[in-house]
Amino acid sequence: MSCVSLTTDYGLLDGFAAACHGVLLRLAPGVPIVDVTHLVPRGDVRRGAAVLASTVRHLPRGVHVAVVDPGVGTSRRALAARTPGGFVVGPDNGLLVPAAEALGGLLAAVDLTMPEGIPATFHGRDVFAPAAAALATGRPLDALGERIDPASVVRLPEPFARVLRGPAGSRLEADVLTVDGFGNVALAAAAELLTQAGLRPGDRVRLSAERARPSAERVPPTGGQTRPSGERRAVGEPELVPGPAGPVELAVGVTFGSVEPGELVLYLDSGGLVAVARRDGDAARSLRLVPGDRVIITPV
Amino acid sequence: MSCVSLTTDYGLLDGFAAACHGVLLRLAPGVPIVDVTHLVPRGDVRRGAAVLASTVRHLPRGVHVAVVDPGVGTSRRALAARTPGGFVVGPDNGLLVPAAEALGGLLAAVDLTMPEGIPATFHGRDVFAPAAAALATGRPLDALGERIDPASVVRLPEPFARVLRGPAGSRLEADVLTVDGFGNVALAAAAELLTQAGLRPGDRVRLSAERARPSAERVPPTGGQTRPSGERRAVGEPELVPGPAGPVELAVGVTFGSVEPGELVLYLDSGGLVAVARRDGDAARSLRLVPGDRVIITPV
Amino acid sequence: MSCVSLTTDYGLLDGFAAACHGVLLRLAPGVPIVDVTHLVPRGDVRRGAAVLASTVRHLPRGVHVAVVDPGVGTSRRALAARTPGGFVVGPDNGLLVPAAEALGGLLAAVDLTMPEGIPATFHGRDVFAPAAAALATGRPLDALGERIDPASVVRLPEPFARVLRGPAGSRLEADVLTVDGFGNVALAAAAELLTQAGLRPGDRVRLSAERARPSAERVPPTGGQTRPSGERRAVGEPELVPGPAGPVELAVGVTFGSVEPGELVLYLDSGGLVAVARRDGDAARSLRLVPGDRVIITPV
Repeated sequence: MSCVSLTTDYGLLDGFAAACHGVLLRLAPGVPIVDVTHLVPRGDVRRGAAVLASTVRHLPRGVHVAVVDPGVGTSRRALAARTPGGFVVGPDNGLLVPAAEALGGLLAAVDLTMPEGIPATFHGRDVFAPAAAALATGRPLDALGERIDPASVVRLPEPFARVLRGPAGSRLEADVLTVDGFGNVALAAAAELLTQAGLRPGDRVRLSAERARPSAERVPPTGGQTRPSGERRAVGEPELVPGPAGPVELAVGVTFGSVEPGELVLYLDSGGLVAVARRDGDAARSLRLVPGDRVIITPV
Repeated sequence: MSCVSLTTDYGLLDGFAAACHGVLLRLAPGVPIVDVTHLVPRGDVRRGAAVLASTVRHLPRGVHVAVVDPGVGTSRRALAARTPGGFVVGPDNGLLVPAAEALGGLLAAVDLTMPEGIPATFHGRDVFAPAAAALATGRPLDALGERIDPASVVRLPEPFARVLRGPAGSRLEADVLTVDGFGNVALAAAAELLTQAGLRPGDRVRLSAERARPSAERVPPTGGQTRPSGERRAVGEPELVPGPAGPVELAVGVTFGSVEPGELVLYLDSGGLVAVARRDGDAARSLRLVPGDRVIITPV
Repeated sequence: MSCVSLTTDYGLLDGFAAACHGVLLRLAPGVPIVDVTHLVPRGDVRRGAAVLASTVRHLPRGVHVAVVDPGVGTSRRALAARTPGGFVVGPDNGLLVPAAEALGGLLAAVDLTMPEGIPATFHGRDVFAPAAAALATGRPLDALGERIDPASVVRLPEPFARVLRGPAGSRLEADVLTVDGFGNVALAAAAELLTQAGLRPGDRVRLSAERARPSAERVPPTGGQTRPSGERRAVGEPELVPGPAGPVELAVGVTFGSVEPGELVLYLDSGGLVAVARRDGDAARSLRLVPGDRVIITPV
């Protein structure tokens, strides 16, 4: 294996990520370590999954450890799995599946055997890093735990994206998947949907947005942070209420440079997703979009 | 030596940590570098000491450099010391001692000879990193400076922890040692104290807290940040006034998962310390606890 | 080449820096990577240039990649250049020139050939990291693009610094170049100017400051952040209006330790620049100085 990568919500203050580095350096000396990020918002499984999935294709073949684990200390399983493009290791809470799919899909999985006598609260250091070191140094997957059915691995609800054709033309509807640190808004829509909607660079479109009404059936947030709409798809198709972004018009472009400074643009981002950016600005803030919002795009 | 670790308050913006990496790469090529953290709050020697001490046992045997050094440019000594588990290098202001003790204790120490003609303000790059590189490549400790008595090394005041036995049962009193980024509160009390107090998983306890009254005798803060009570033990046993946390009841558990989401739990953390957490929440914020507060725990 | 360094405004949340690490690990395995910083304020080309220039001399000979690139997707050139001390790679927007000069000056430069079919928005991963890997593994500069005249490379406007001699003594005027995370204020004045102004440790000086009046001719900010005065030199010598720092008196010292806690000091910083610090405090905040302000120093 030519690298071990780490994706966590540990932050960079407490030495937690460093302890994982230490374990890897001791058990798998010489294997490069890549810190994908340690700044996933606390307990935001969906965000951690998206960051890792969009990064993993650019990393060397390796073992990808992710720990966003609000369920540590509960009965959630601890997972290691093989894909055509390497291994993934972490809690069985949906975090790893998008990365595994980016690497070709889950071929085999085990429920990691817990070492004896470890504290119950730091599985990154005490369970997942040792498992990753074992895989990185050639130990077989089956030596690490009991086989489980890959189909039984927990998955996050699928983000929503579709194209509707009507008398007034096509309509692209998609959930906001992530907002990056620049305020660029990535939708859960691949390039094909833009083509299906008949949209091309130079076209102008109207964008509006809706936000799920918080509802009693909503599954409880998994982390310390309240994520108002991130979980709504787990309870089926909830009521939608008008969202914060009023309708705006923008151009379809190839890149930020397709529009003037300060203007919005709809484009394909570097991960291949339909995205909205404001040149030299913050699209998410000005449109008040957050992950989980639904965006509706229609031709003008 | 199989690693050099770095623990500083340099932040990650200015290239200061990178300059230390550069010095190490030039003078000790091939030795892995572990960034424990560069986000210690400015000048917070106690916090830096705690982060390094809790991390160092998980790192490979090596040279551990720490620089939280509000006294740079004053007459404080520059230290390198040998322990059974590796070396520590940094300012002689108490920062290194807890890590040295975690590695088995100070066996020998030198006051580092200052290189000629260096700027007076960046000892991490110009003094400590070169010394660490020398040790990591096999140079003897005595080549780096004058021997000093390990007993003369500056120590931080001991945090307070004790068990009092009375007619109404035992009472555990301990200072808050650190608050991590999740809001988990680690007390200055090892597992034995929990046993001495007769507390076991499943028991319920009452927790209250006191904060030292800021007083004129208090030693001045060493950094740019005001730490209201962190230094109080340096001036003996100060008056205690009621603290911000009203009495609360909570369970003794094994982990976060021992309680329902949103509930408090008293448990042993991954560093072996008695700690308070709120499942899926921030215990320190809700109890308004900061390092240096004194926590009193009694059985219900 | 014994290292590749990275200086970006990508932040540490989104996996962008990690994707660059992945490309480098795949294309130039075994070459150490140094993260100078990924926290340059968005689009702040001048700040990125200053951080890299002050760090690069302490890194091993190598390839230094910098990406603060508000013009990505526009027609700005993509640059790789050779200096006596290594290579620099990044956008042709002035970012690389101060580092190149710290390494001995631009000897040769190419306009990088764009790979086919890459997204238009992530040149760090798709253009600059691959170019750096090529140089780090011995590929010749000319294989990467068309030669361009080094004199044609875009340069940031020179920051201003001078000594005026008058009947009342010398007067040192210099722009604020950077403010570091500790609040230390580095001026665009090298040590010689302090000597020219006849100032020595122990002298006392008066410091005042002026801020450029925002004007219609000001070139538009290049990034998402408004930098009120950072660009004023691009439009010649603008009107100056009274700045926020009233006149204060302070000592010329060798280091922070030259003055009492809480006091200001004028000194030479670890990068060899005239600087203002407040011992155990934040000089920039208390004097309300920002990069681009002009500071005037006169003997008392």
